[in-house]
Amino acid sequence: MSAPTVTGTATPTLAELPLRPELVGEEPYGAPQLDVPVRLNVNENPYPPSPSVVAEIATAVARAAGSVNRYPDRDALALRADLAAYLGHGLAAEQLWAANGSNEVMTHVLQAFGGPGRTVLSFAPTYSMYPEYARNTHTAWVTVPRTADFRIDADAAVAAIAEHAPDVVLVTSPNNPTGTAVDLTTVRAICDATAGVVVVDEAYVEFARTGTPSALELLPAYPRLAVSRTMSKAFAFAGGRLGYLAAAPAFVDALRVVRLPYHLSALTQAVARVALAHAPEMLAAVDQLRVARDDVARWLVRQGLEVAESDANFVLFGRFADRHAVWQALLDRGVLIRETGPAGWLRVSAGTPAEMAAFTTALAEVLATPDASRAAPATDPQEGPR
Amino acid sequence: MSAPTVTGTATPTLAELPLRPELVGEEPYGAPQLDVPVRLNVNENPYPPSPSVVAEIATAVARAAGSVNRYPDRDALALRADLAAYLGHGLAAEQLWAANGSNEVMTHVLQAFGGPGRTVLSFAPTYSMYPEYARNTHTAWVTVPRTADFRIDADAAVAAIAEHAPDVVLVTSPNNPTGTAVDLTTVRAICDATAGVVVVDEAYVEFARTGTPSALELLPAYPRLAVSRTMSKAFAFAGGRLGYLAAAPAFVDALRVVRLPYHLSALTQAVARVALAHAPEMLAAVDQLRVARDDVARWLVRQGLEVAESDANFVLFGRFADRHAVWQALLDRGVLIRETGPAGWLRVSAGTPAEMAAFTTALAEVLATPDASRAAPATDPQEGPR
Repeated sequence: MSAPTVTGTATPTLAELPLRPELVGEEPYGAPQLDVPVRLNVNENPYPPSPSVVAEIATAVARAAGSVNRYPDRDALALRADLAAYLGHGLAAEQLWAANGSNEVMTHVLQAFGGPGRTVLSFAPTYSMYPEYARNTHTAWVTVPRTADFRIDADAAVAAIAEHAPDVVLVTSPNNPTGTAVDLTTVRAICDATAGVVVVDEAYVEFARTGTPSALELLPAYPRLAVSRTMSKAFAFAGGRLGYLAAAPAFVDALRVVRLPYHLSALTQAVARVALAHAPEMLAAVDQLRVARDDVARWLVRQGLEVAESDANFVLFGRFADRHAVWQALLDRGVLIRETGPAGWLRVSAGTPAEMAAFTTALAEVLATPDASRAAPATDPQEGPR
Repeated sequence: MSAPTVTGTATPTLAELPLRPELVGEEPYGAPQLDVPVRLNVNENPYPPSPSVVAEIATAVARAAGSVNRYPDRDALALRADLAAYLGHGLAAEQLWAANGSNEVMTHVLQAFGGPGRTVLSFAPTYSMYPEYARNTHTAWVTVPRTADFRIDADAAVAAIAEHAPDVVLVTSPNNPTGTAVDLTTVRAICDATAGVVVVDEAYVEFARTGTPSALELLPAYPRLAVSRTMSKAFAFAGGRLGYLAAAPAFVDALRVVRLPYHLSALTQAVARVALAHAPEMLAAVDQLRVARDDVARWLVRQGLEVAESDANFVLFGRFADRHAVWQALLDRGVLIRETGPAGWLRVSAGTPAEMAAFTTALAEVLATPDASRAAPATDPQEGPR
């Protein structure tokens, strides 16, 4: 720009500021944060930590706060060692990376391996935040449709990789918002087909059915593979904001180049280490939540609804001609779920027995009303989010 | 890329991974983190919080940890209201933005208003992290030389703005690593000259001499102006990672579009609010540190060294033909300072009386040795960092 175009008014609108053109009209990402009795919208673990873990967290923070005037360990080595020990598979600290949520981890991946002139490929419908990571890093965003039952077709994946030559391939297993797990044969086929890096996002993997393998098994064979995880879901630590990733040391070194220095506070590092030290307790509700998921899925089927098979702590169900009306009718009854995913579908998180009872009671009421149409929507159910 | 170029070896080097070309050979940013007795290298406040503040922090964290299974307030409204109240100047929560350190705040600014095809202009020598923000956001980085005494020449600034038409102008006051404050007349001239946004980085402003005005005063007149601050320096909260910015509400809305959701953990929000509630205590050492700064500056002048006039909690001094040798010789004596800024200069933070005594004792020894040359370096002292 060559001359001032905005005059000196003290309260400009956003349209009067020189925002990047592709951001004009964009809304900040995020589900509505509403104060309602039953929140089943963001796949949180509904069980808070025990008083004894809370007390240990307070003690650890007091220790860290005693030197909070100093910068934290920039490399978070003790935390990364704890994360490696938690994951097992023979991993070491230098193979682990951690950041303020897996969304920061994924941003680091796209800053290092994506960016202008590069492409990230994923499989739609999938997590609606991914296109935002791509937009924020100026990486082209390409999707391959999943099958009608939301699986990744390995042949279609390989063909799309040949066509688009992506620099980053993003495989979500279990997938959000469909709950679909990806088999390792498909991950292998993708790794073999691409010259780019592959990230398997296993944010929900702890909820997968027993015996479901993790892509961590493939790390020794595939140096351009990374597996991302989070403490926000099964670990009941969404408020602590800790995402992490396992990969070859050189892959982690690439992320270290683009991270902001001191990105993990001393308090985050200290508190996450306490949570990891109590992993069995923090993860204790996983089995209950799997039962809650399977129970609600069966209940939804009994109502005559379509239900996506889920290995996560949520269930995608539909289809509704006007899903927003159903979402709103549930909210009117104090139950907040998520309006996301392909047209006509809605997503509900697995909660406590009381929360699930409130959800099924409310949805039964809504389904009994004449205006809650279950007709298939006009748009293609394969359509990706957003 | 169209075909695999990396074979399946389990321990690749970084050179074998498809890193972005401009990142090849780059090192992660940051001063060496060395375990030495006297650390005067990263401008920390050397005084930890009192036991009573530490206890309150622990209590607040215990409260937050009781619901750590839930995501935090995505908009951090209570914290932003506290920051507004702390800054005064009639500011409200919607005019404040906060993130994990001012480096994340500045990244948000460049993501919203910089980026590919856009330019950020600053005044060299200045903070060596700025070019990294520009690199990470693909924003062109342009610098205008400061005067011989490290001031910004308003006419040169206006001319450079006319020449480069920057989208973002970054004014650091007091400047790092020189300590130089910028007068508001110059900030006004810059705001009047540019059609882009202007950020005055006041990370060190609390250390400025009494009566030095803040650019916060100019916010009502300039809708494209923002003032960034941090709790890492005067506030003695470097380990807590909290940077913030004040601007028009629409400016803040632009940053909300590019932020990652839930970027500030529930624990960060809770702990920062405790620190803000005890602002007078957290800031109590500022006066002492100003005295330490002025004392060490006078001492350095008495040693026959050049010393930059500082309004921050550090002093830039020189010039040395081999500054690295001087830095190393101090480190060998247990004193860690920073090798940064224009060629031939070194930077020392203001510390406790004991730390400053250790520094002056060590430097006196080094200066007394025959190989510690004070000759002017071959390169231009105007040269920017890195």
